[in-house]
Formats: sequence, C-alpha cells, structure tokens
Amino acid sequence: MLTVPLCSSLCSRLFFCSCPSSRSLPKVVKRRVNALKNLQVKCAHIEAKFYEEVHELERKYAALYQPLFDKRSDIVKAAYEPTDEECEWKADEEEELTVSKQDEMKEKAKLEEEKKDEEKEDPKGIPEFWLTVFKNVDLLSDMLQEHDEPILKHLQDIKVKFSDPGQPMSFTLEFHFEPNDFFTNTVLTKTYKMRSEPDESDPFSFDGPEIMSCTGCTIDWTKGKNVTLKTIKKKQKHKGRGTVRTVTKTVPNDSFFNFFTPPEVPENGELDEDSEAVLAADFEIGHFIRERIVPRAVLYFTGEAIEDDDDDYDEEGEEADDEEGEEEADEENDADYDPKV
Amino acid sequence: MLTVPLCSSLCSRLFFCSCPSSRSLPKVVKRRVNALKNLQVKCAHIEAKFYEEVHELERKYAALYQPLFDKRSDIVKAAYEPTDEECEWKADEEEELTVSKQDEMKEKAKLEEEKKDEEKEDPKGIPEFWLTVFKNVDLLSDMLQEHDEPILKHLQDIKVKFSDPGQPMSFTLEFHFEPNDFFTNTVLTKTYKMRSEPDESDPFSFDGPEIMSCTGCTIDWTKGKNVTLKTIKKKQKHKGRGTVRTVTKTVPNDSFFNFFTPPEVPENGELDEDSEAVLAADFEIGHFIRERIVPRAVLYFTGEAIEDDDDDYDEEGEEADDEEGEEEADEENDADYDPKV
Repeated sequence: MLTVPLCSSLCSRLFFCSCPSSRSLPKVVKRRVNALKNLQVKCAHIEAKFYEEVHELERKYAALYQPLFDKRSDIVKAAYEPTDEECEWKADEEEELTVSKQDEMKEKAKLEEEKKDEEKEDPKGIPEFWLTVFKNVDLLSDMLQEHDEPILKHLQDIKVKFSDPGQPMSFTLEFHFEPNDFFTNTVLTKTYKMRSEPDESDPFSFDGPEIMSCTGCTIDWTKGKNVTLKTIKKKQKHKGRGTVRTVTKTVPNDSFFNFFTPPEVPENGELDEDSEAVLAADFEIGHFIRERIVPRAVLYFTGEAIEDDDDDYDEEGEEADDEEGEEEADEENDADYDPKV
Repeated sequence: MLTVPLCSSLCSRLFFCSCPSSRSLPKVVKRRVNALKNLQVKCAHIEAKFYEEVHELERKYAALYQPLFDKRSDIVKAAYEPTDEECEWKADEEEELTVSKQDEMKEKAKLEEEKKDEEKEDPKGIPEFWLTVFKNVDLLSDMLQEHDEPILKHLQDIKVKFSDPGQPMSFTLEFHFEPNDFFTNTVLTKTYKMRSEPDESDPFSFDGPEIMSCTGCTIDWTKGKNVTLKTIKKKQKHKGRGTVRTVTKTVPNDSFFNFFTPPEVPENGELDEDSEAVLAADFEIGHFIRERIVPRAVLYFTGEAIEDDDDDYDEEGEEADDEEGEEEADEENDADYDPKV
C-alpha cells in the first residue's frame, strides 16, 4: 500500500541552517538561491495537490478492495463457507513434497489423532482471527493485556474509512465486535486527522500527509467489565486514634482499550513528555493498522508478513529487557490518616 | 514525494512459515485460511493496478513540476536572472533580527569586505550548484573522487523522465552537462527498470514497484580524460636474464562516473556478492536522486534538507572508520618475467 510518512516528532520544526557554504556565498549568488527557494515553495504546493489526488486514488481503491475484505470478514465470522475451489492453495502441496518418509508417517499419525478431536469440535469460521493477528505483531501485542484477550476474541473485523472529498483529510479505523458481555457498542472507532498542506511558516517541512491528531470514542462498558479501570484498596491508620480504615480508589488500568481514549492535543499544541510519547506511538500504530494490518491481515495471522517486516530490519545486538514496575496513582492524602500502614 | 519501496535484497524470496499456529489449526479452519490467502492474491493484483495509477499521477505531476525545474536550471546556468521580487526571502530578515549588536557590526564589516571582492568577480548563475549538492549528501559524496569534481562543475541539471504509458515501468535520470573538455556527450543517462506486478510464484512479496535492474550509457571520453581508468606501471625482472622491463597496464579507477556502467544482471539472475552489493547501493542512489535530490535540490545545496533527513535517524553510537586499501588488478603473468622486482 502507499506509505504515508509520519511526522517524527509531534512538533517538528525545520531550523534554517547557518551552513557556512550558504552564508559565504556572494550576494548576487545568494539572491539567486533565494529565487530557487521561492520556486521550491511553489513545488511544495503542487506536491500537496499531488497527495490530494493520491488520497482520491486510495479512496477509489478502498472501494475495490472492500468486496474482498467483506468476504474475508464473512469467512472469519462463519457467515460464509468458502467452496473447495476457493480453498485450493498450492503451497500446501509443496510443503508435503519436502517432508521425509519418517516425518510423513509421524505427520499422518498426528493428523489422524487431530481428526478424531476435530470430529468432536466444530470450529466456526476462523476463531480468534484478529486476536491472533494482534498477538503475532509486536507493535500490537505490546498494547495487549491478559484481561483484553477475552474481549478481543469478539473482534470480527477492522475497516478503514476515508474522509469524503472536500473534507479535511482523515481516516477512521472501525473495530467491529460481535455482541459480547463487555460493552454494548458494535463498533469502536479511532479517527486520525492529517495535515495535507505545507505549513506556511515552514513550507519545506512538508513531506506528504502526516497524522496530526486523533480522537477515539466512548465505550459503553457493561457494569464491572471496564478493563481500563481498576480498583485498589489501601489501608490507612488514623494518626491520632490508631484505628485502621480501608480506602477504595478507582485508578486507570493498562489495557488495549485505552487506545480509544488518546491524550488530547491542547489548543496551544503543547503536551507533556509522556503524552507526547503516547501519541507518537499511537500515530505509528494507527498508520500501521491502516497500511499493513487491514490490507494483509491473513499474512499476519499466519506469520508470513512478519518475516517480511523482519527482512526490513538488521540485527543490532541484544539489549536487556526493561523491567517495568506497576505504577499506581498517588493516594489522596487525608491529613488524619497515615497513608502507610 | 511518493516513497517507492526498494527491494531489500536483489533476490528477495518469501519463505512460507511453518508457524505452529497455522500448522496446528484444525483442517476445517486451515481450509478457510487458504481461502483468505486466495483473496489476498486478488488484493495483490488490485494493488498492482493501484500502483500503475499512482505512476500515471507521478507522470502527470512531473509535467507540472517541470516548468519550475526548468526555471531552476535557467537560474543555475545563468540563462535567466530572477527579478527582485522572485528573490525576496523572508528568513533572511528573520536571521538578521536574532543577531546581536556586536555580531551586527562584525557582519557589516565582513559584508563590506566581501562586496569589494565581489566587485572584482562576477559569478554567473549559481556556480557549482550540483557539485555542491553532491558534496553535501553523504550517499552521493561517498561516490565522489577528487578527479570527478572538475567534471561535475559542468553538471547543469538532473532531470527525471518516466516511461510512457503502456511501456514497462521505468524511470531515467538525465545528467545534463555544459560543453567541457572531458567528454562530448551533453547528457549522460541512467535508466532504472521496475517490477510493477506481483511475482506469480510469490505474490505476497509484492509491496509496490521495485527497482529490479538498471542500465547506463556510453561516455565518449576525450583522449586522456577518462577518469574511470588509470594506468599503472609495474617493473618486472626477467627470471633468466635479470633484465628489467616496465609494463603499463590500464585498470579500472574509482570514480563517480562508474555510475554509468553498472554491473549487468545475468539471465539466470545470479550475481557475485560484490556486484550484488554495488547494485543494491546503486538502486538506493537512483531512488534517492529521483525522490529527494531532483525535487528538492536547493534544500540540499543549502543543507536544510540534510537536517530533515538527519531527523529521521537516531544516534546509534560510533564506529571506527573502515580502512580501505587500494585494490590493484592482478598482473598478467609472463612466465619469463618475475612479477615482483
């Protein structure tokens, strides 16, 4: 798919180079260099139009892919059973040819065992298709907590929707869920807004459409099922009396579903460091889901696409794992109570 | 500009994953996964058409940029003197505002000095524009030898030409030179051929058009000016007689101009390791000149674009320089002569 470059920091500013080569230029030459810069600004504006037309093309092709993605969804959720012809896949035959005789006999015994098991089960569609995709991809599995998995088993499809022509450029990821015990929404959405024009004060930093901000949606959690919150209990001892009380507090909980409540970018555009990091990671994820996951989901399910992505990276050496402790929110201080027991 | 992914190795093959998750799938589910793979092959074919249309768009926009690039060329080679209005550039005023009083006086004295020097010279256009671009960009300066510089001073423009509709997808870099003492060609060309369809035997490795091969051109060197060759003299002692003779041999010389004689990819597609490395680097350079250098040349001249590119990379730590010795071709062995004196 078309690679849309991401801004490398949320506040990318191009500083003008006081590069000796240009400062030491004769004035008559510097003047002509400035003329070239003005031409370059015009190029940047033409480039913006180019990207608008590419976006039009993407919208057009999204409509051409959609029937294939809809069929994928129908197969995954068991709304459609593919025919034998639709299931013929040459590589299985190739894989069989490379297996040794001994392995062949082991494989045969194993298949007969599996066949007996299968005759008891009758799996519909492709169970846990999208959950498996998430678990196979580091960028996504890093967001997953154990308590998210039972919920993501109900994820049936992820669709990408583009902004309409004439609207500011954006795309929306729609996460379609089958009915479940966790929330009543059938679709959770995440919208990414993009900058598709050069910034007048900084025309040369434009390098194609960039994600600038995102908004999530409200999840209508069933009571007691909200995995983005947890309650913690703290015992406190009254400083004077010595009696102990238990304080229950609701605090944020790590969860994939925080993806739908991203930090907001304030009017003045300045965020704290943590939120900036969260948003930068969020933009990367949104981009990756749109560009790679949705278009090639089956290859992430089987693992084939992950090896492709691995080929793009070279080994850099090993690093010790960072140990992350759990962070708990600060306790409310009640002056009468000693916060530590 | 549109980023066209490069193949990470000249012979990229996707191997099928014997990933436990897919081999241990129940047969009925595996069958449906195969149906999804067949849908994915259809997606790959639609994607190929998408990229053809993107290429059409690029061709259309190349025609829209061309007048701006032609004007750039006219200014660089002094065929056109831009008006005062065309040379107004706001940042110069901004730079002046941040200078301290002391610096201002130093700057003034320096400018008066320069003005006196300038009144003696009268530089036309933007001298050594493209040579400066090459020297400012590591990927290109790595190719430059000292003996190439006097020749590249005559480089007046680099144009990108696209293949015609209906032709196999390719692009050509045209290096336009003013008349010079080194060769009689006015244009040196390098053509990159691309693969724009999925490989039937490996449909999932398709990730957009990729450079697959390239061809250069013949340079009509003036006698004695061919910097891609050097002569070396070797003294040899006759084994029997003891007399010494001097043998003159012509061997390849490192030069940017070897860019126009890339290794050929043989019919069977197999290259030795060195040639493979040379070609991989060559494809990267061709791609970079097309996507970044030609569209934004002035920003590489001033150095502004280099900082942008730097922002895309994080510090990885330092490495000792590789020391590269000079390689000389093997001497012809004359059995009568001892090759070493």
